Amino acid sequence: MSHIRSRFNAPAAKPVVEYTSSLPFDKRLYRHDIAGSIAHTKMLAKQAIIPQQDANTIIKYLTSIAGEIEQGKFEFKAELEDIHMAIESRLFELTGEIAGKLHTARSRNDQVALDMRLFTKEAISETVVRLRFLQQSLVELAEENKDVVMPGYTHLQTAQPVLFAHHLLAYFEMFQRDAERFGEALKRTDVMPLGSGALAGVAYDIDRDFVARELGFSQISRNSMDAVSDRDFVIEYLAAASICMMHLSRLAEEVIIWSSAEFGFIELDDAYATGSSIMPQKKNPDVAELARGRVGRTYGNLIALLTTMKALPLSYNRDLQEDKEALFDSVDTLLPSLEVFSGMISSLKIKKENMERAASRDYILATDLADYLVSRGETFRNAHGITARLVSYAAETGKALNRLSLSEYKRFSPLFNKDALAISKSSSVAARNIAGGTAPQQVEKAIDRAKEMIGKSNKGGF
Amino acid sequence: MSHIRSRFNAPAAKPVVEYTSSLPFDKRLYRHDIAGSIAHTKMLAKQAIIPQQDANTIIKYLTSIAGEIEQGKFEFKAELEDIHMAIESRLFELTGEIAGKLHTARSRNDQVALDMRLFTKEAISETVVRLRFLQQSLVELAEENKDVVMPGYTHLQTAQPVLFAHHLLAYFEMFQRDAERFGEALKRTDVMPLGSGALAGVAYDIDRDFVARELGFSQISRNSMDAVSDRDFVIEYLAAASICMMHLSRLAEEVIIWSSAEFGFIELDDAYATGSSIMPQKKNPDVAELARGRVGRTYGNLIALLTTMKALPLSYNRDLQEDKEALFDSVDTLLPSLEVFSGMISSLKIKKENMERAASRDYILATDLADYLVSRGETFRNAHGITARLVSYAAETGKALNRLSLSEYKRFSPLFNKDALAISKSSSVAARNIAGGTAPQQVEKAIDRAKEMIGKSNKGGF
Amino acid sequence: MSHIRSRFNAPAAKPVVEYTSSLPFDKRLYRHDIAGSIAHTKMLAKQAIIPQQDANTIIKYLTSIAGEIEQGKFEFKAELEDIHMAIESRLFELTGEIAGKLHTARSRNDQVALDMRLFTKEAISETVVRLRFLQQSLVELAEENKDVVMPGYTHLQTAQPVLFAHHLLAYFEMFQRDAERFGEALKRTDVMPLGSGALAGVAYDIDRDFVARELGFSQISRNSMDAVSDRDFVIEYLAAASICMMHLSRLAEEVIIWSSAEFGFIELDDAYATGSSIMPQKKNPDVAELARGRVGRTYGNLIALLTTMKALPLSYNRDLQEDKEALFDSVDTLLPSLEVFSGMISSLKIKKENMERAASRDYILATDLADYLVSRGETFRNAHGITARLVSYAAETGKALNRLSLSEYKRFSPLFNKDALAISKSSSVAARNIAGGTAPQQVEKAIDRAKEMIGKSNKGGF
Amino acid sequence: MSHIRSRFNAPAAKPVVEYTSSLPFDKRLYRHDIAGSIAHTKMLAKQAIIPQQDANTIIKYLTSIAGEIEQGKFEFKAELEDIHMAIESRLFELTGEIAGKLHTARSRNDQVALDMRLFTKEAISETVVRLRFLQQSLVELAEENKDVVMPGYTHLQTAQPVLFAHHLLAYFEMFQRDAERFGEALKRTDVMPLGSGALAGVAYDIDRDFVARELGFSQISRNSMDAVSDRDFVIEYLAAASICMMHLSRLAEEVIIWSSAEFGFIELDDAYATGSSIMPQKKNPDVAELARGRVGRTYGNLIALLTTMKALPLSYNRDLQEDKEALFDSVDTLLPSLEVFSGMISSLKIKKENMERAASRDYILATDLADYLVSRGETFRNAHGITARLVSYAAETGKALNRLSLSEYKRFSPLFNKDALAISKSSSVAARNIAGGTAPQQVEKAIDRAKEMIGKSNKGGF
Repeated sequence: MSHIRSRFNAPAAKPVVEYTSSLPFDKRLYRHDIAGSIAHTKMLAKQAIIPQQDANTIIKYLTSIAGEIEQGKFEFKAELEDIHMAIESRLFELTGEIAGKLHTARSRNDQVALDMRLFTKEAISETVVRLRFLQQSLVELAEENKDVVMPGYTHLQTAQPVLFAHHLLAYFEMFQRDAERFGEALKRTDVMPLGSGALAGVAYDIDRDFVARELGFSQISRNSMDAVSDRDFVIEYLAAASICMMHLSRLAEEVIIWSSAEFGFIELDDAYATGSSIMPQKKNPDVAELARGRVGRTYGNLIALLTTMKALPLSYNRDLQEDKEALFDSVDTLLPSLEVFSGMISSLKIKKENMERAASRDYILATDLADYLVSRGETFRNAHGITARLVSYAAETGKALNRLSLSEYKRFSPLFNKDALAISKSSSVAARNIAGGTAPQQVEKAIDRAKEMIGKSNKGGF
Repeated sequence: MSHIRSRFNAPAAKPVVEYTSSLPFDKRLYRHDIAGSIAHTKMLAKQAIIPQQDANTIIKYLTSIAGEIEQGKFEFKAELEDIHMAIESRLFELTGEIAGKLHTARSRNDQVALDMRLFTKEAISETVVRLRFLQQSLVELAEENKDVVMPGYTHLQTAQPVLFAHHLLAYFEMFQRDAERFGEALKRTDVMPLGSGALAGVAYDIDRDFVARELGFSQISRNSMDAVSDRDFVIEYLAAASICMMHLSRLAEEVIIWSSAEFGFIELDDAYATGSSIMPQKKNPDVAELARGRVGRTYGNLIALLTTMKALPLSYNRDLQEDKEALFDSVDTLLPSLEVFSGMISSLKIKKENMERAASRDYILATDLADYLVSRGETFRNAHGITARLVSYAAETGKALNRLSLSEYKRFSPLFNKDALAISKSSSVAARNIAGGTAPQQVEKAIDRAKEMIGKSNKGGF
Repeated sequence: MSHIRSRFNAPAAKPVVEYTSSLPFDKRLYRHDIAGSIAHTKMLAKQAIIPQQDANTIIKYLTSIAGEIEQGKFEFKAELEDIHMAIESRLFELTGEIAGKLHTARSRNDQVALDMRLFTKEAISETVVRLRFLQQSLVELAEENKDVVMPGYTHLQTAQPVLFAHHLLAYFEMFQRDAERFGEALKRTDVMPLGSGALAGVAYDIDRDFVARELGFSQISRNSMDAVSDRDFVIEYLAAASICMMHLSRLAEEVIIWSSAEFGFIELDDAYATGSSIMPQKKNPDVAELARGRVGRTYGNLIALLTTMKALPLSYNRDLQEDKEALFDSVDTLLPSLEVFSGMISSLKIKKENMERAASRDYILATDLADYLVSRGETFRNAHGITARLVSYAAETGKALNRLSLSEYKRFSPLFNKDALAISKSSSVAARNIAGGTAPQQVEKAIDRAKEMIGKSNKGGF
Repeated sequence: MSHIRSRFNAPAAKPVVEYTSSLPFDKRLYRHDIAGSIAHTKMLAKQAIIPQQDANTIIKYLTSIAGEIEQGKFEFKAELEDIHMAIESRLFELTGEIAGKLHTARSRNDQVALDMRLFTKEAISETVVRLRFLQQSLVELAEENKDVVMPGYTHLQTAQPVLFAHHLLAYFEMFQRDAERFGEALKRTDVMPLGSGALAGVAYDIDRDFVARELGFSQISRNSMDAVSDRDFVIEYLAAASICMMHLSRLAEEVIIWSSAEFGFIELDDAYATGSSIMPQKKNPDVAELARGRVGRTYGNLIALLTTMKALPLSYNRDLQEDKEALFDSVDTLLPSLEVFSGMISSLKIKKENMERAASRDYILATDLADYLVSRGETFRNAHGITARLVSYAAETGKALNRLSLSEYKRFSPLFNKDALAISKSSSVAARNIAGGTAPQQVEKAIDRAKEMIGKSNKGGF
């Protein structure tokens, strides 16, 4: 750092050193930083901006510094304010003066933008892989329980019978949209910023496309001032992660409710449950609760960076340093959440009888009766009213709908006929035989399609 | 509403009616609701679920209801809880019993999802159009001031000279990414949910693809439970709007700072400035301040809906009603912000002399001196140190760099030669002649490319 | 507005007028604005800054303007940018020139701060009143069901039996803290800003304390620049409202879960439930769902204003106009939510048998068995382990704990004796007889204390 | 942990162990945890729930464990899920069976609530101390520059001259409100939760008041279910920290703007400034920028925990574990921010001439001219209009107001007299001689009052 402060008469105050240092967290970017420096150095030599021999030396020692860090032998000195200076400073120790050529035609402003883009690209790839595993767990569980009927809920009130598999596949769709979103964020992340310099571009005859190719980027940035002050790609990850964690929180909520004694629809595998320090009988869905709770931090990280970016004038401002911990924390929240959910879903024990018992009660077939009347010529609104009165009557007399006699039915509409009594949760489910509906035939198709999409993505598409 | 409550013995309590009614705000969806109902009715007739003649009657009166609303003749009765019931109820008044057939094979759950998707599609289109206008204003202003040099800033400290046009084009890039994001959100919005029923699909032989075609959707939803409980598309709009307003807040901050007496880089047109109730001399950049302030509400709306969606079990829950005002408010914030910014930018008066004077001071060319030394064989780090000491010396003696003599230069490095004294803000700008840099040649290219992209989008692409 | 723009050569552009006008929402402040103007005018006359006769005229017509607005006869002209100018402009119509004296020694900057403080003070008072009503509903329901035992939950898993009344009183405590917080926010709201002028104070011999007394403020602001740019008091309301809505969202979640067929602990009164447009049997807890959903908007409003305030330089900036809609929306969300919850809670039907049945199952007494062993000399950790093994055994053999024989018990610890079999949910509840515990005696005390606190607050304390 | 899982047949899956462990961050609570355990143990012995001798042993070894941790000799084993189990487990190693008595009459649910309350109380105290230091720095700087006049701004446009000291004292007021808020949050934090057990209270004859006294709490919690699920006190800290950081962000923004070459009002001490890796001349206000940027994380943490708490049913849920990192991060953000700001403010170099030059330009005295006309009998509105026209005239003719002749003045109003030309920035400032105004006399009083308040707080009040 000392060389950066050469203009100053006094060292930074100690609390300032601590306050401004990003080394405690940006050291995590060391691989990306070194990869970027190596590509940059190769280019400098190729363009004859520095001698090839110096470039070779620099690259050799950068590689060995990477090794030192990986092996835990590297000393991160608190007074070096960031990972860039920490590495450059070590390079000086190893090569002497030659190290001074590395930072030619580069600024920390474009360098850190590069590191963050390399990191975010990796994070996106890993996120999508884990989304696919979770989708697979859902599809497998759906397929194994293809014929289990459960109550579908609206307002957490019993609504209509649905296939358990259909319910699971709703989450497949959510995670599918998530994967798409991450894929699109990738496009705007996959842009190589080096060459933007501090803000205005650099005054050297560099080859930006070469660096982009070396590092696997498909584009280069198009405006240097934008490139050093843009963090949209980080915000996009944070926003996509927030939506994805929100989906997980919904699934978590259902796992928690279904695990309650009162619902009793599922039982967690012991490996995915925790106990109590005081109540010996407890089997708690802590994994689901933590995922539900952790959606908070992904929202928080999103708001944090959006707030930081508000009203920042161009170009680079130190405020931008705040992009890192927000991103790291959301990545470190989302990735393990996806992982543990895959395992939790795969190992779920389904209590089929409880689901089916619940799907048999509470006038769950009232809509089917209304539809029946429509099929016999009633308007839907009348049919709805008739059935509502029938339900009131049944509730008052304390009977289930299938305990009423045909004559009781007919008291509410002459259109009721014997076949009305044959309506069952199976017939109800089977009747919803349209694209996207819960009929077994449709769900079968949806499972096939889902498997196909997962297969495709394994071959590299989103 | 009464027919919906047919099961109940008591009317809703008055505060409950007010608390639950969405009519005060969802009436805004009347066009979308009626368009959806007409397409649904056509399909019901085509599939022979209702007679063609009844369909004709329903469609005729739905059309006339749309007219009534447009002409302000429609009475929105407080006790009808939402726009769907308000319209259906009016249909009953006009057609009698036949109106009861409209809601066949449909639920308010899929109906409101449809309305929201139709609205959001329109909002996206309009947003992109306005983004294009703003981009055009920026490009035109850049082109008109192609040769104006201003100080580039980092940390709001004078950094290196840049072209004013280059600075403006940084915003072109931001709005370009915004347009892309809205375009991608559109893909996931452009999905037709009708046929999902309350949650499980419907028990009628409907033709979902027909409805989709009628309404201009390119896809149908693939899981009924997901379709009635998904609001990802709204959140995506809110997230994209937040990022876009954040970009506007950055531009607003610069307009405000540049308008200050101390900077004096620009002057707002009178039509875009406001006065003071007490200080007669004031000319205030209220438009920019309000845009900067309003970024808050777009962040707020994003957090609001993310919070609402957290941990909701499937499928439809009444909480989802909260999607509307958040979306409406962000649309109503973003669209006029884009519009007034186009006008404000187009009418800006550029105070070229002030910009150029500011670009001439404060050792702004120090980097160029360091680069000069590198070109003469110094390592960059040494060159940086030498120049820093030179700047310190100049500052202490109170001289600008171009007031130092060659011999003074040479005191710091023998590599300095006469041509070092020829470095100017023009040569500095010109030297950054790489893709994305601030050199006139590059900025010219960037303007051409920008114009081409706007032209392309006028022909329908994003 | 025209007189404010006298310096300008051009009128504001039409979209600018719309973009900057706050009249559509700040007209709600008309009562506060007029009250402030009357107090200000009285003071101007008392201090002989304007003639008493002019003051009388101004006050007379301000009073009549208030009447016009209340009776809906006032025309809010779009081109008048805010409520202040709308009223002043009407005053000119009524009094001519004299109206021009009203704005002496005042700026809109301190004027709007005053209006907002008056509004917020009222909002706080009303909020606390409604909190008290809700607390009362909870206490009454607790008292009526004083002996009902229900399962206490942790992790939504059955944990230990508790009194339903004890559960309800947990919410009493939350709302008590809410009332305290609003009371403290009041202290910082209750500060009179007039006299701060545009930012620097005013150059007239005014009597600020007089104005404060007239308007019922207990303090005057102490720094004019702070006074015109401070919105802490609004943020405090928004923060307290967010926490309070969060508490309501928790209660709402429980109402929803308890209303499910599977729990069946409560039944909503018909007046507080809603039906379905398609499923005739539904009885939905929409009120609870909407309150749960609306917590989102209070969080959103909080973030919105915090974002707006970020990094604003002193003193007044137009961004501050954004305080209004955020505040209004949170007030309009919280007040009705508190009201409908009072009614919903008061009219709840408690299904005592279902609660007690649920409180009898699932090894809910395991902790009591462990405590029993401790009382017989075992360390708690051993006792916990022994009981856990006992529960595993019971679960495997499919028996409830009270179906095991003493000899089965003794297989796990010789310390078990006959009285272990007498442990029941009643004895469990009774045993927690410490301050804050669920024993009937403690809950009785808590109810008494709660009633006393409500009584006290009715007499004016918080 | 193994004893907690005694009911289970399988260990937790490895990713589950990592996902659920809070040890990596809650180990920070070891002091609070041990202090709580010691107080609890003393009480258990006093109440004869465990033998005094066992208590002595437990306390002795808990003390030595605290020492081990402080000296870095304690091994935090990943498989122990939290700090409570880590310490208890070590206690077992040291004491054998006796350790099993520590957890009598306690649950981790009330234990962690206690730890968090102890931590938060400390955090509040430290925050208030640092607020006082910062206030002191502001007051000292104000006093040292008591007679410096600067331009007061609204809309970042020159508005009226103010004393620099007056401007600084506006921040004194903000931090005063912050200190009050933290003080009030303390009241609700200062509540002892132990005795609440898992949720229902404990079945032992404990003495809660004794524990409260031992630990320095002034109250005990009043409802066990509330006590284990309440995190309001954490949210209050997060909200107060957000507002306080918002205030810092405003001060930061001004430091940044004032440090720009264009404003040039202040110069940072070298110890509080940073350099550039590429531009040798730069002196950047990174400390201010980082504080401005970090306001984002405090907002984020607030939203994170509010989100986590949304709609959680009673009582303890694992989601609550998410309170810790949010709190720690906001404390770790706010405390150093306050510290570095104290130092930065104390060491600021004020460029008086630049401030005063800026306060002399741009029709800054126009309000005073309007006030002058009012004093000569004009209505304020007319006076405002006249002065506005005078300013337009001056601007068009390119003259400052004090370059206009009296006859030019009279062209706009005959009321102008010679003394109008004597209006100066000093007379302007002096004229605002009312409570809270910028007149030297008032500012003097405000400084005295501020010093008195700081003195008082040093003696222990808020």
